[in-house]
Amino acid sequence: MPEYSVVGKRVPRVDALDKVTGAALYSGDIILPKMLHGKVLRSPHPHAMIRHLDVTKAKALEGVMAVITAADVPGYKYKSELVFAGNPHLARKKVVYAGQPVAVVAAMNPYIAEEALSLIEVEYEELTPGLDILETMKPDAPLIYTNLYTQGPYGKDTKPSNIAWRVEYRRGDLETGFEEADLIMENTFRTQTVHQGYLEPQAAVANIDLSGKVTVWTQSQGIFQVRALVAEFLNVPLSRIKVVPVEVGGAFGGKTYQLLAPLCALLAIKTGRPVRMEMTRDEVLKASRPAPASLITLKMGVTKEGRITAASAVMLFDEGAFPERPYSSNAAITGLGHYKIPNLKIEALDVLTNKVPSGSYRAPAAPQAAFAVESQMDLIARALGMDPLQLRIKNAAVEGDLLPDGTTFPRIGLKETLERMAKYLTQKGKLEGENRGRGIACGFWRGGVGCSSAHVNVNADGSVNLVVGCVDLTGSRTGLAQIVAEEFSIPFEKVTVVTGDTETAPYSDLAVGSRTTYQMGIAVYRACQDAKAQLARRASLTLGVESTEIEFAQGRFQVKGKPEKSVSLADLASNSISMRGEGPITGRGSVGVPPFAPMFAVHVADIEVDKETGKVKILSYAAAQDVGLAINPTLVEGQIQGAISQGIGWALMENYVFDRGVLQNTTLLDYRMPTAVDVPFMEILLVEVGSATGPYGLRPVGEPPIVPSLATIANAIHDAIGVRLKELPMSPEAIFWSLQPNIKVKQDVG
Amino acid sequence: MPEYSVVGKRVPRVDALDKVTGAALYSGDIILPKMLHGKVLRSPHPHAMIRHLDVTKAKALEGVMAVITAADVPGYKYKSELVFAGNPHLARKKVVYAGQPVAVVAAMNPYIAEEALSLIEVEYEELTPGLDILETMKPDAPLIYTNLYTQGPYGKDTKPSNIAWRVEYRRGDLETGFEEADLIMENTFRTQTVHQGYLEPQAAVANIDLSGKVTVWTQSQGIFQVRALVAEFLNVPLSRIKVVPVEVGGAFGGKTYQLLAPLCALLAIKTGRPVRMEMTRDEVLKASRPAPASLITLKMGVTKEGRITAASAVMLFDEGAFPERPYSSNAAITGLGHYKIPNLKIEALDVLTNKVPSGSYRAPAAPQAAFAVESQMDLIARALGMDPLQLRIKNAAVEGDLLPDGTTFPRIGLKETLERMAKYLTQKGKLEGENRGRGIACGFWRGGVGCSSAHVNVNADGSVNLVVGCVDLTGSRTGLAQIVAEEFSIPFEKVTVVTGDTETAPYSDLAVGSRTTYQMGIAVYRACQDAKAQLARRASLTLGVESTEIEFAQGRFQVKGKPEKSVSLADLASNSISMRGEGPITGRGSVGVPPFAPMFAVHVADIEVDKETGKVKILSYAAAQDVGLAINPTLVEGQIQGAISQGIGWALMENYVFDRGVLQNTTLLDYRMPTAVDVPFMEILLVEVGSATGPYGLRPVGEPPIVPSLATIANAIHDAIGVRLKELPMSPEAIFWSLQPNIKVKQDVG
Repeated sequence: MPEYSVVGKRVPRVDALDKVTGAALYSGDIILPKMLHGKVLRSPHPHAMIRHLDVTKAKALEGVMAVITAADVPGYKYKSELVFAGNPHLARKKVVYAGQPVAVVAAMNPYIAEEALSLIEVEYEELTPGLDILETMKPDAPLIYTNLYTQGPYGKDTKPSNIAWRVEYRRGDLETGFEEADLIMENTFRTQTVHQGYLEPQAAVANIDLSGKVTVWTQSQGIFQVRALVAEFLNVPLSRIKVVPVEVGGAFGGKTYQLLAPLCALLAIKTGRPVRMEMTRDEVLKASRPAPASLITLKMGVTKEGRITAASAVMLFDEGAFPERPYSSNAAITGLGHYKIPNLKIEALDVLTNKVPSGSYRAPAAPQAAFAVESQMDLIARALGMDPLQLRIKNAAVEGDLLPDGTTFPRIGLKETLERMAKYLTQKGKLEGENRGRGIACGFWRGGVGCSSAHVNVNADGSVNLVVGCVDLTGSRTGLAQIVAEEFSIPFEKVTVVTGDTETAPYSDLAVGSRTTYQMGIAVYRACQDAKAQLARRASLTLGVESTEIEFAQGRFQVKGKPEKSVSLADLASNSISMRGEGPITGRGSVGVPPFAPMFAVHVADIEVDKETGKVKILSYAAAQDVGLAINPTLVEGQIQGAISQGIGWALMENYVFDRGVLQNTTLLDYRMPTAVDVPFMEILLVEVGSATGPYGLRPVGEPPIVPSLATIANAIHDAIGVRLKELPMSPEAIFWSLQPNIKVKQDVG
Repeated sequence: MPEYSVVGKRVPRVDALDKVTGAALYSGDIILPKMLHGKVLRSPHPHAMIRHLDVTKAKALEGVMAVITAADVPGYKYKSELVFAGNPHLARKKVVYAGQPVAVVAAMNPYIAEEALSLIEVEYEELTPGLDILETMKPDAPLIYTNLYTQGPYGKDTKPSNIAWRVEYRRGDLETGFEEADLIMENTFRTQTVHQGYLEPQAAVANIDLSGKVTVWTQSQGIFQVRALVAEFLNVPLSRIKVVPVEVGGAFGGKTYQLLAPLCALLAIKTGRPVRMEMTRDEVLKASRPAPASLITLKMGVTKEGRITAASAVMLFDEGAFPERPYSSNAAITGLGHYKIPNLKIEALDVLTNKVPSGSYRAPAAPQAAFAVESQMDLIARALGMDPLQLRIKNAAVEGDLLPDGTTFPRIGLKETLERMAKYLTQKGKLEGENRGRGIACGFWRGGVGCSSAHVNVNADGSVNLVVGCVDLTGSRTGLAQIVAEEFSIPFEKVTVVTGDTETAPYSDLAVGSRTTYQMGIAVYRACQDAKAQLARRASLTLGVESTEIEFAQGRFQVKGKPEKSVSLADLASNSISMRGEGPITGRGSVGVPPFAPMFAVHVADIEVDKETGKVKILSYAAAQDVGLAINPTLVEGQIQGAISQGIGWALMENYVFDRGVLQNTTLLDYRMPTAVDVPFMEILLVEVGSATGPYGLRPVGEPPIVPSLATIANAIHDAIGVRLKELPMSPEAIFWSLQPNIKVKQDVG
């Protein structure tokens, strides 16, 4: 690998000082003069017609400045009655989940706003809620939307249903495949709804200027997407909305949705004043977008040597009340995608229920699929008496293999990652001790959607400003600044990276799909090349040779091979703006959706189970991951450690507990997430099989490390106590009951 | 001329609503938590050694957070003892003008800061001040700086002097030229120091973050120049300073100087808190940078037909106490530059005195030179009995003629402008009435220095954001937005123009030299072409032809000559960020100092003199100007009207009154400027001889209309009462005394 001077180094985060001292600006820090406070009235019912909605009394309350309902939303005029576009889904005529916004109030202070909510009169006619996907997916199930036709690979269905999306992938011949197998295994795995668990509740501030232009401050995963959504909600051109970036206190996919900004903007327009809205933790849990529950049935055939001959899967995801995004297709592609399976059939569906709408959560739907597939692989290894790592190495996809959707794997490092873990385990040795077990699992994520653009401005002293419009969730500013420093051969400190607002920054898609450093990295890299090409041309004039004769070496533009005939970046930059200069140096870079740079993670957990309480203690955890090139190993390790912590919570603790569609555990005491004491030391093993597409071989990083973590722990529990748990969370209670085989525990689905 | 759809139209200013309602943000509107207030202690003496400077008592005062003197300025360490670079010239060892900063205090509030100033102990040893340029320029005059060597065309002098700059231009043979003349006339003209008269006094706020980075808000003519200056003053890299643009309440050249920002930034560093500084009107008049006084002696020879055969001039400018910029060279180039003069010698000098340092004021030094030259031309016309317009038309320079500095005139519209005025006067007819007179004069300005760059970001709906880093003094944002709208064939409303800060915006030079719309216009135009080239390439992919086959017509990208095979800007923009898109469209444009696009103005004033009081009443005023193309006639007319108003003040009222070097009239009651009642209706005649270099033939506009105004009024007074005033201001008092030829009035120079 080439030696880089800044890329690959553990430089400190550019935002470190601001973050640790509290100087960083978050949505909640935005306080404007004469600011009003907005509150949302939410439906108490999971499914009901709104027969009557009267806001008169609320409006009459002193200190109330505006009350809005769906009838006030300009953007709703152009949408069909029940199926809507975008958030935040102010209820129209009926409510489809408990927690859905029905009306919104702006008042002088939050207390008056709260009081006003209690004065809003709503008459509901309750409808039977559809709460179990196995019920709502039936052809004769009561419809949540009468005009929803399943979107599938063969177009839309002709008859409405509660199935929002369906994908199906086939390859080879299933029957032949299973005939070739020596062992056929079928299992069903279930996961529950869990929350992304970000620290910072949603908040938004909107202001309106004299021309009617609205400025929005809100945490999000994409300022341009907030702009588009608010503009659509208000039915105004994009140029009437300005979104200012603020720091984000955790997102993990959950802040791709804008639950407050559109409402807040409309309140600002109605009142002519700045308005602030903030969700309580109760609202965050009840009415933001948690990860979907899943039900996956998996049938796999293998030879006695461990070669997979066939696999079929039905993957069901609980989309909740809004047909928003096809999570199931992620599962269909990534769940079995990393194995060579000649005969394959995957059917994956997103099914509506009258529950809180599902959303994206770090590698959306992949952890659920991996929980099923990697648990099954573990069971197969046990059945065949094979080493579970070797079973995976045997079936691992390589460059040129096809994914379930027919796309081809480019250069990938799955085998290298598995082998890295094998080597680590050899060094580590066997796990000894009673009720202890080691679990191994593998994870695949494709990531990398969206497009990006970037500007670099070269300052007169040879320092460089990088301007981007992407949100920094992961330390991406730091990584991008490293690219700029590397490309210009300048010290890291000489790069200033700034997130512009929607008016100053070039466009960027959402910070999702682990894409920012990888894909914005390409745009930044191109912007650097664009600026360097201009600098080379200037250098050619200075040095009196053709542009093609100029090379950039050791921070100077020189005549090829002649360091003695050269000019420095700083001199060129300073000349550029001098009286005889040709003008300032500014570079641009843009990139569409680039080819995928697939990512793989292999995890190993050593655990111990307390059989009396069912509590799992994680003794140690190791994660190997092909990151292409770790642009900043500290940040990469942080991403992996954070993802594993979330995986531990998902595996062992977290669960949305519903009572007839109404969420019961709406505090962080009742919705238990891991704390520092629940999280073990983690060994991070970075594998660097350079991608074909990212600069320096960069691959996306942030999402894959959550993918194998659920199955890793399930496999470890099996190894420790001989019991296979096929349902999450594997709470102390669940483990305890699993150890009492004669007592059957009924699981409540609703 | 081609027909444009947005360029040339009277669209409203983009900042109009904010400005008229007070929503626009100025330096003085910036209030930060825990903000301190800074005040400056100024020298009472025009010339003195500082024998002792003790700030102990001031520092000890409760509420005082910092006191700084020159010894605290990091950037001074690297500068020679008495000659410094940049502003704000905190006195070191000696003071060189009354009003010079000696120490600066930051305190809890402005009252404590004031009190602290009174506790600073300074012992001065007074030196004889040099107050008259005719004295200070003498070889044996006491030196203000012992290490100042005249900068001239032949290098530096070997002996120090009080002459800061000297230029000399020669052409032909003077002796021969005067021999050919039928009439030789020699006169000396004098103008006094006048102020730019902007409404908004200087103010600055500086804050420091945890990393030590300083953010500055201050009105200026260039945010990047503020950055450079503050960085130099503090001796830190550019990247440690961020300058945020605010609106500017008038500048006219006077805000190219940063009198507060560096001090304010240093106070912020010393105290760790935000600091605000604001100048009183007294300080503004006493210690900002007014336009230099001048003394010009002019000898001209003409044939009886009115052809100029020779001219020689000595042009002296009072540089005040700092050798900052060579104003005299502007006068040397523009004063006689617009006439064909075969034999020419011009010597121009900037001479130091112990008075407030001079600065730039709208077409710096050109109005003073035009006062001399155009008064002289009027006298020549009278002597020859020629029509003053015809005399000028006869001698007017045309394309290809040489300027005094040897550069060549490109396409110019001087003759056209003179002829336009001749036509106007024919229509208007003769001026009748007692004590009434008509004056005519001509003005030339070259303008257009500095470099620019710009970004355009195309939004998904086909609207466009323009990002620039230039300060808007004249409505330039509006003009630049018109260029973008024109180039993309979109409505003006679909362009958002934003001034970024020094971290988000691409570099721009100062908003000076009438350059912004003209020259930033070139950068903006190029950025549009860059984006359009990318769009054409995308269109070629969509339409299945080569890029070279694509043309942009009627707002669509089409196959050449085939409007039926086309795609809209909005569709391309929206596709660019779609899943299959090639990435966001962002364009960049950059330009160095472009060729000059010379500008000419011809003014006519009809006036009436009250012989009893000496008061001049301006009956009407007409101004013809070659603007190349009036990008927005309303804004162009506004520039011309504003400049004439300033010219009227300069001609009739304004004057710095010194008493032994100390300014006496330091309020706007004593320093009288024109008000609405002093300013007549002005007829603006726009001439459009397109420049060879500006987009659409644009020329700079803002400065030339002040150039001929002083002489125009002097010539009108002569026409009205038969008296030639060769000295400004032509106050009622001066006119009254001029009508009493037997009484000699002595003018005080000091």
